Amino acid sequence: MSSSPSIEQPMATWDSIQEAHARIAPRIHRTPVLRSATIDELCGADIFFKCENLQKTGSFKIRGATNAIFSLTQEEAAHGVLTHSSGNHGAALACAAAWRGIPAWIVMPKNAPTVKCKAVEAYGGRITFCQPKVSSRNETAARIQAETGAVMIHPYDDDRIIAGQATAAKELLEEVGHLDAVLSPVSGGGLLSGTCLSAKHLQPSIRVYGCEPAKADDAYRSLQTGTIQRMESSDTIADGLRASLAARTFAILQKNLSEIFLVTEEEIIGAMALIWERLKVITEPSSAIAMAPLLKPEIREVIARSAASRIRPRIGIILSGGNVDLGALPF
Amino acid sequence: MSSSPSIEQPMATWDSIQEAHARIAPRIHRTPVLRSATIDELCGADIFFKCENLQKTGSFKIRGATNAIFSLTQEEAAHGVLTHSSGNHGAALACAAAWRGIPAWIVMPKNAPTVKCKAVEAYGGRITFCQPKVSSRNETAARIQAETGAVMIHPYDDDRIIAGQATAAKELLEEVGHLDAVLSPVSGGGLLSGTCLSAKHLQPSIRVYGCEPAKADDAYRSLQTGTIQRMESSDTIADGLRASLAARTFAILQKNLSEIFLVTEEEIIGAMALIWERLKVITEPSSAIAMAPLLKPEIREVIARSAASRIRPRIGIILSGGNVDLGALPF
Repeated sequence: MSSSPSIEQPMATWDSIQEAHARIAPRIHRTPVLRSATIDELCGADIFFKCENLQKTGSFKIRGATNAIFSLTQEEAAHGVLTHSSGNHGAALACAAAWRGIPAWIVMPKNAPTVKCKAVEAYGGRITFCQPKVSSRNETAARIQAETGAVMIHPYDDDRIIAGQATAAKELLEEVGHLDAVLSPVSGGGLLSGTCLSAKHLQPSIRVYGCEPAKADDAYRSLQTGTIQRMESSDTIADGLRASLAARTFAILQKNLSEIFLVTEEEIIGAMALIWERLKVITEPSSAIAMAPLLKPEIREVIARSAASRIRPRIGIILSGGNVDLGALPF
Repeated sequence: MSSSPSIEQPMATWDSIQEAHARIAPRIHRTPVLRSATIDELCGADIFFKCENLQKTGSFKIRGATNAIFSLTQEEAAHGVLTHSSGNHGAALACAAAWRGIPAWIVMPKNAPTVKCKAVEAYGGRITFCQPKVSSRNETAARIQAETGAVMIHPYDDDRIIAGQATAAKELLEEVGHLDAVLSPVSGGGLLSGTCLSAKHLQPSIRVYGCEPAKADDAYRSLQTGTIQRMESSDTIADGLRASLAARTFAILQKNLSEIFLVTEEEIIGAMALIWERLKVITEPSSAIAMAPLLKPEIREVIARSAASRIRPRIGIILSGGNVDLGALPF
């Protein structure tokens, strides 16, 4: 289902996003939008943080997972669900599967953070570890699928997942009104492409930007070259951003994204410390990255140049997750 | 003004709380109420966390400080304001004074956490350090007042402060409806007495509980003995909870409080770790303490026995602040 080699028309329409929102809203948190006067002053902009790090399971991933699992027919759901994930999607799928009362098999790279493995187990997910490479991950998942008959729910190359992730930006824009730009992390592109779909539908003139570690710049290179570039492995601290784009997400980003900003490991850690200190919320590196570009004057200039609110841009940031080993902080 | 030896009638009426709320609401954050399914399950209750740790200046103290400062006449405000504080009230007063464009002198104990001193300075507050004893603190404040003519804004023995702090519980109850109980930290009693006033006005059958370190149990002993007990010094990790009750707060607590729960240092740290891990918000020890009693079965039993919602109590917790040295965490 998720292995289509090319996608002419993205299937995650505005109707499907609205349906997803109605389906998941009773089960998930309506996360707050937080602000910091100090960060606003530092960046010369009004910044609105959509706190998916405060979402159930600690990340936006529960949106897509819940939408996908509660979209399944009884027959489809009967043998459970299966996915591969470096962590947050796995925990989310395990949680949503438990809500529906079906098993969830999760294939995880053996270098996944302990906190993310524990979360999957706490929600009742059944972990199989693989090598931290795409080939090992796919082989392991195929074997489990053959053994169990579980439905594969790809972490992002799935229209139900994209429609679910799109509801975060939908809530943000419906709450705060006009924004000149919205920034989101990019890994496989589920959150970023969902953000594109909601933001461009609700406010066609908005600019959507992706934020990616320079150490795992495959999405940046994919958009530069016009073909999906893969990342076999990366040791970026943003452990949730090691995946590569897929057909569905690439098509949406090619059509809607303004640019991808690359940032260094130090810039990610600096943004993370700033968010912890000023916003007082726990944010993982893969999430804090969406703040990092705004700390660079040349990127603020890029955003300001194309902003309708010329004097003081209004910028949304999707803080995607808060699952971090508290015993191993980088500051 | 704040040194009345006894208070027959507390002056912080419901009318003054409503006025305070109207005065401060445009200047402060409407903080979110967060929930955690895991914490609910652990405690067998529906728990609503009012996140004043996400408030401007990182604590509820900005409520009272803003109310007090914007209640001053032009003449009163002309020479600035003065207070003594172990940290959060000082930062809040400095911030609100800057909003009004007047100077703020802050007397702080020399063992106050670095993060709290830096915050006061960042808001433009003028710090004078004193010995960590009540006598040294009062002498230093009196000297500065004589020199500057600034208006003393006591951290809690002040009706304008109490009315301001009362708005946190007002927002919580107006948002979530019926609660069986609400828990708040207690130090000088500004937040706890304000919580009593709002909670008992809005829901007369509600139980209000204070939470205090066993290592700084002066409020507990004050209510036990019927006279204010003082604490010369304490090394509890809950650095914001080292003050003693004053006439105004003691009178309100005697009339309205159900009980004070004492907890150990280990219980405070355990609650803090749980809140960081599950709620994903940064909470200082003085704030996390309000969760700690709910981790003890015998205290859950006390609360459940008097709850109207017999099967599953509905409990509010005021998370009072999030100003913590990220480089010196206790876990």
